[in-house]
Amino acid sequence: MTNTHYSSSLVSEDFNVYLSERGKIIESYLDGCLPAEQTLPPKLSRAIRYSLFAGGKRLRPIVVLASAEAVGGSLADALPAAAAFEMIHTYSLIHDDLPAMDNDSIRRGKPTLHIAFDEALAVLAGDALQSLAFQILSEESSSVSPDRRLVCLTLLSKASGATGMVGGQVEDLEAEGKVVTGTTLESIHRHKTGALLQAAASAGAVIGGGNKKQVAQLTRYGANIGLAFQIIDDILDVTGTTKSLGKSAGKDAKTGKATYPKIYGIPKSKKRAQALVASALLELEEFNEAAAPLSKLAERVLNRTT
Amino acid sequence: MTNTHYSSSLVSEDFNVYLSERGKIIESYLDGCLPAEQTLPPKLSRAIRYSLFAGGKRLRPIVVLASAEAVGGSLADALPAAAAFEMIHTYSLIHDDLPAMDNDSIRRGKPTLHIAFDEALAVLAGDALQSLAFQILSEESSSVSPDRRLVCLTLLSKASGATGMVGGQVEDLEAEGKVVTGTTLESIHRHKTGALLQAAASAGAVIGGGNKKQVAQLTRYGANIGLAFQIIDDILDVTGTTKSLGKSAGKDAKTGKATYPKIYGIPKSKKRAQALVASALLELEEFNEAAAPLSKLAERVLNRTT
Repeated sequence: MTNTHYSSSLVSEDFNVYLSERGKIIESYLDGCLPAEQTLPPKLSRAIRYSLFAGGKRLRPIVVLASAEAVGGSLADALPAAAAFEMIHTYSLIHDDLPAMDNDSIRRGKPTLHIAFDEALAVLAGDALQSLAFQILSEESSSVSPDRRLVCLTLLSKASGATGMVGGQVEDLEAEGKVVTGTTLESIHRHKTGALLQAAASAGAVIGGGNKKQVAQLTRYGANIGLAFQIIDDILDVTGTTKSLGKSAGKDAKTGKATYPKIYGIPKSKKRAQALVASALLELEEFNEAAAPLSKLAERVLNRTT
Repeated sequence: MTNTHYSSSLVSEDFNVYLSERGKIIESYLDGCLPAEQTLPPKLSRAIRYSLFAGGKRLRPIVVLASAEAVGGSLADALPAAAAFEMIHTYSLIHDDLPAMDNDSIRRGKPTLHIAFDEALAVLAGDALQSLAFQILSEESSSVSPDRRLVCLTLLSKASGATGMVGGQVEDLEAEGKVVTGTTLESIHRHKTGALLQAAASAGAVIGGGNKKQVAQLTRYGANIGLAFQIIDDILDVTGTTKSLGKSAGKDAKTGKATYPKIYGIPKSKKRAQALVASALLELEEFNEAAAPLSKLAERVLNRTT
């Protein structure tokens, strides 16, 4: 797979075309990553595919690819990491939706996995996706050096686990129905959503061969859009509909979740998200035109309606 | 950490002393692997420790260490992989015990994690342990080369996921209450239990610097003791008590699980386990005295009562 095939329509064309093209590349790569159907129980294979191809925005893998390209790396080299980040994200949604957690029955406009299949399979499909994410990054599938692949594995595992995403979900569940300060809420969001987006930007920069300064800049870019993304998520839960979002709207208020609108109101929350995106854009200043997709992505995080 | 500190009492002393000494080394190393308590929610930290230090046999990490030493590798180099295998095993027990799966309330003589804490935390502590296993293997913590660490990561992730342990658990749940052939049952056991033990032996051999032939021999050794281990597990579920086992006895019959005693009866099942252990021992023939612990371990798998 060569880079030239993908790089022509990167910047100048409409950004929606870019996103849709990237989504297709990622989905096709994800499809190729899944174990051959005869090597695993058919029901497990169907469950994994059900969630992985449910029409997600593919934000995290798009960030991985765009970060790699922003530092001059190739898209092909970054695809395994992109797929790994999307698998971790998908597994986290499956587990978060479980009855014992957020108990959600709709995701990406479809019944959640434990509704469409059953709870045991939802736990296990999530577990399998997590293993597969690390398998893809560890297998020799690209020209990326072993050292860089190990750095990506560390970034992804740290961002996923107890000190990252999973820790954030625990904080989030513990905060339900309690009075929560802005500081605690920011910590929840930075762990639960921010950590993975931050690591996606870092991993892309590492794979692309970015220097220390560039990796640090893109890491901060990722942290900023990660928190902005979750603030907008909180706002959309209030202003959106279940139909427009493809997931249950109004859920946060119902379950007594701590959110930015609840603590600061919608206008202040929007301003905070705007400020975070402005900071993210500042981190891109020293990059050339190759970082244009990252800049458009940051704006999209702010202006998204789904 | 130097190897000499540990290698003196390896073989000649009583095997129980060896196992207990190894258990302590592994537990102390596991303790050091856990993230600092202030970096994650206290409840999550307690839940992870509750399950990880519940007094397991530490069979998988002991196999990793013994395999590495059998090919002349150092114990210190193999400790990260040993810890990673134990974390994956522990996470799998936590998830298997969940109400939606085997719905078990006792494990290692204590209430299962979802009983002692709650179900959400059990899902999340398991998820965090899986991430941590891969983190430990990817971080630069030993003199093991990046290439070998990546091979171990691939072995562990493949053995854990859809084509290994998780796939086996799906097969197992699907077989409940059904008439199952011996072939299907062997497939369930080889995936659910065998895959991880096989990968533990392979990973140890790779880290220890074994040549291709040695890695293949120890891989077959692991596959054989893995299946033997599960057959004995099936037998103990019939002949043991909840007190002696530290987990619910008689469970398989109650839930209509396919087991070796159910299909073949206890005497034939024992013979099959004996044959597997004999095959495992054959694989060790070309190794020197350094493989003695692996040989004793194989016998212990057969003669264990808990």
